[in-house]
Amino acid sequence: MAFALNKQASLPDFAHEDLIADRVHARKGIHFFEKAEYPEGVKPHPNPINLLAGCPNHGFFPIESIDVHLKKEPFSHSLGKTVVVPDVSTNESVLDLKTSLQYGDTNGQPSLRQKTHDFVRRVVRPKMNDWDIMMTIGGAVGVGQCFDTLVNPGETVLFEEFTFTAILNGCLERGGIPVPIKLNKVMENGTLGQMDYADELESMLSNWKEKYPKLPMPKCLYTIPNGHNPLGVALSLEQKQKIYSLAEKYNFFIIEDEPYAYLNFSSVEKEANYNLSNDEFIQSLHPSYTTIDRSGRVCRCETFSKIFAPGCRMGYVTAHPKFLAYMKTSSDANTRAPSGFSECIVNNTIDKLGGVEGYIHWITLIRNEYLKRKNIFVKALQNTEASKKGLLSPIDPDCGMFISCRINLPEDKRSDSVAIMKKYLMYCGVAGVIPVLGTNMAVDKHYSAKRGNFLRLAISFPDTADVLVESAGRLSEATINLFKNL
Amino acid sequence: MAFALNKQASLPDFAHEDLIADRVHARKGIHFFEKAEYPEGVKPHPNPINLLAGCPNHGFFPIESIDVHLKKEPFSHSLGKTVVVPDVSTNESVLDLKTSLQYGDTNGQPSLRQKTHDFVRRVVRPKMNDWDIMMTIGGAVGVGQCFDTLVNPGETVLFEEFTFTAILNGCLERGGIPVPIKLNKVMENGTLGQMDYADELESMLSNWKEKYPKLPMPKCLYTIPNGHNPLGVALSLEQKQKIYSLAEKYNFFIIEDEPYAYLNFSSVEKEANYNLSNDEFIQSLHPSYTTIDRSGRVCRCETFSKIFAPGCRMGYVTAHPKFLAYMKTSSDANTRAPSGFSECIVNNTIDKLGGVEGYIHWITLIRNEYLKRKNIFVKALQNTEASKKGLLSPIDPDCGMFISCRINLPEDKRSDSVAIMKKYLMYCGVAGVIPVLGTNMAVDKHYSAKRGNFLRLAISFPDTADVLVESAGRLSEATINLFKNL
Repeated sequence: MAFALNKQASLPDFAHEDLIADRVHARKGIHFFEKAEYPEGVKPHPNPINLLAGCPNHGFFPIESIDVHLKKEPFSHSLGKTVVVPDVSTNESVLDLKTSLQYGDTNGQPSLRQKTHDFVRRVVRPKMNDWDIMMTIGGAVGVGQCFDTLVNPGETVLFEEFTFTAILNGCLERGGIPVPIKLNKVMENGTLGQMDYADELESMLSNWKEKYPKLPMPKCLYTIPNGHNPLGVALSLEQKQKIYSLAEKYNFFIIEDEPYAYLNFSSVEKEANYNLSNDEFIQSLHPSYTTIDRSGRVCRCETFSKIFAPGCRMGYVTAHPKFLAYMKTSSDANTRAPSGFSECIVNNTIDKLGGVEGYIHWITLIRNEYLKRKNIFVKALQNTEASKKGLLSPIDPDCGMFISCRINLPEDKRSDSVAIMKKYLMYCGVAGVIPVLGTNMAVDKHYSAKRGNFLRLAISFPDTADVLVESAGRLSEATINLFKNL
Repeated sequence: MAFALNKQASLPDFAHEDLIADRVHARKGIHFFEKAEYPEGVKPHPNPINLLAGCPNHGFFPIESIDVHLKKEPFSHSLGKTVVVPDVSTNESVLDLKTSLQYGDTNGQPSLRQKTHDFVRRVVRPKMNDWDIMMTIGGAVGVGQCFDTLVNPGETVLFEEFTFTAILNGCLERGGIPVPIKLNKVMENGTLGQMDYADELESMLSNWKEKYPKLPMPKCLYTIPNGHNPLGVALSLEQKQKIYSLAEKYNFFIIEDEPYAYLNFSSVEKEANYNLSNDEFIQSLHPSYTTIDRSGRVCRCETFSKIFAPGCRMGYVTAHPKFLAYMKTSSDANTRAPSGFSECIVNNTIDKLGGVEGYIHWITLIRNEYLKRKNIFVKALQNTEASKKGLLSPIDPDCGMFISCRINLPEDKRSDSVAIMKKYLMYCGVAGVIPVLGTNMAVDKHYSAKRGNFLRLAISFPDTADVLVESAGRLSEATINLFKNL
């Protein structure tokens, strides 16, 4: 197969309509506001009084203003700048309470959308001229709305065989049928390697009718290409290009979930670098599918949860405007706009940090903290007794919050991974450490049993890196106990 | 028919399971956290290190603390108390950033749930011993989740023929078929009277198969019993009791939507009363269906939008815990928890106002402002030329944000209401006032045409009551112009 992205003429025509779920086309969007029609020569009043909506005047809101005291840097209790949310502001870059606490467009407040759009243009750099962003009420909800926009009951959705399994609920909710793509290479050579699966996927697709006689050809692929959850690895650009070509050839959509992309560890110095420029940081990032997309078949889902705070309950998606228009019907039907408190505090914080450039700098500080933790923890795991005995192998991740750690079960035990890893969880509990089992991150734990003998270890939650060092010792103890009782 | 609520023995047994939609039963709630199992005698570590979830430590959050400056009273720019949201707090009644900005339970933070539960117990006073509340991300989303929990495709949902028509989207989204209940009496005698429709409903239900041969018996009733939107009226307790008896007899569920219940105008002095005690205020409220419900077939949906601010994107529902457990699967699948900023600011504001009692007092202040506006506007409408000529009749509402105003079309023109009211909107636009047409608040505007000749006028949005007085003059001008050109 030729992965020639420039041979556009040979590709089937792509119409968004064809990939959109029936439920979207069925939505009527009933509302009771009606625009008056004026005969020629009749003019409406220039200053009409609005008695339309049940919007409380902002005088009814109990809050006059909000002061948000920022940290000087992550984990510091020294105060940095103070962000003000005023009752009313004429500064377009600042969100006031009058606006943000009112009913607003599902798509969020214009000033925050503008900042988000500027951020995506600067950092993600989508290829198409035609792209836009839409606010969501969180990363996973945004992905759910992609499924809602695309998937009819009984349609096939592709997943990397190990994935953020909680997202399956959003697929199943719309009647989608998840099909795992085998990650052949990821567990090779006693370590977790690259996620290369373009060839595997091509083989699945070109033999679909024989392999999956009861399932329609896939409608979309859900992928976490950079800072994969649970694996921590990033898909190479070449792999992405091959997979995108398959999407064009077999006409499926790509849902790119990227909560972790900015916690990027590779292609930069291994130690935390507080002199990293924004340009250097951006250059170091693994590219998004939106940098390849030329036909509008990619939706990139992001979140404020990992960089700002999960309690924002706010994220955004980047895609072709036609797709976003369909997707907005899902937000209108199910969620509405994000919280106005979240919008004004995040928006005015970005503004106060110095706009998009200041916000990117803050992200580099966050990323440095994760890099320090990651380096300390990987070294601690490598230095454990269990690692030295060859019983476990931590993976130095490309980006994200997770370190994967292979439990080196003997070849003849690996088909029993599901039962063995469950037993291993007991040894972990006794030793005093709670990991996530690789087997539980599989779309189908029995299908993936032979490759499920690993742990997902989150480095994000403990108060200090010391705790991670302590946990490495406990994991070593649990692993040694497991192997004694295999 | 006997509406004897005490003859429980003669009623069919009620099982929540039977009323729950198939999609709820089909949900698997996949997650990847697994609990270890310990053989007898094996004990887990007392202080395990948690490497489970991708939760950022609160040290990563950019905010150290938030100060919220409250207004002294509605529409005042004088500052009242200052609400603090600290980084960390040991006061259980206060929500800190560490907790509220983290991932949280779909059902919201315990301290806010407790306050909400206390509020409902004090103000709404549900009858059953077994009831609980669940947080939602807004009133209409909460109602949508009720439909999601109850309605299978093709099932019937009852609506008052005039209703908050935007809510129909939530019903249609789940494949529900809306059926309007005729509000016979509401437009009688040239004015909008009570919403009495229990007899009409009984007649529909007892002749269902003849009247609606293609539709199954109703699964639920959506109602706005107090401060009806658009009518502004409240259903009497006797009517509610009759309708509840029908729900038991015909085994349907009642979704009670109550955004406006606390903006209560009747049964208290007509002028704003700043000495109103909380007890007097609570006594004056129109009762909820939850004060009648004894079998757990009512879900009351509320919102912080009208009392606090729409931008909270937060509400709550009150129902039987069994129903809430089903409904939570809908929140888990579609929305997750409310914004942590909304939760901590609302929670700590209620705390700072003096807890639930202080919050109720704030509500009485809000209610007084609406009462003043309502009285000024109704009087202004009554004093217009159009009213004196008998062309329009404003309705003094029982509660809420809306004043309904009948346009007294001649009897022989009323079946043309849809076209005439559309023309009227043009005259309103020229005169400089934008109302909502009654015809647009109908489930089926042609079915309700003969009763759709009224306006819904929101008193909530203008900056001052003077604007409402000005708008009354403009409405009069538009009405006179309409009648000149009928």
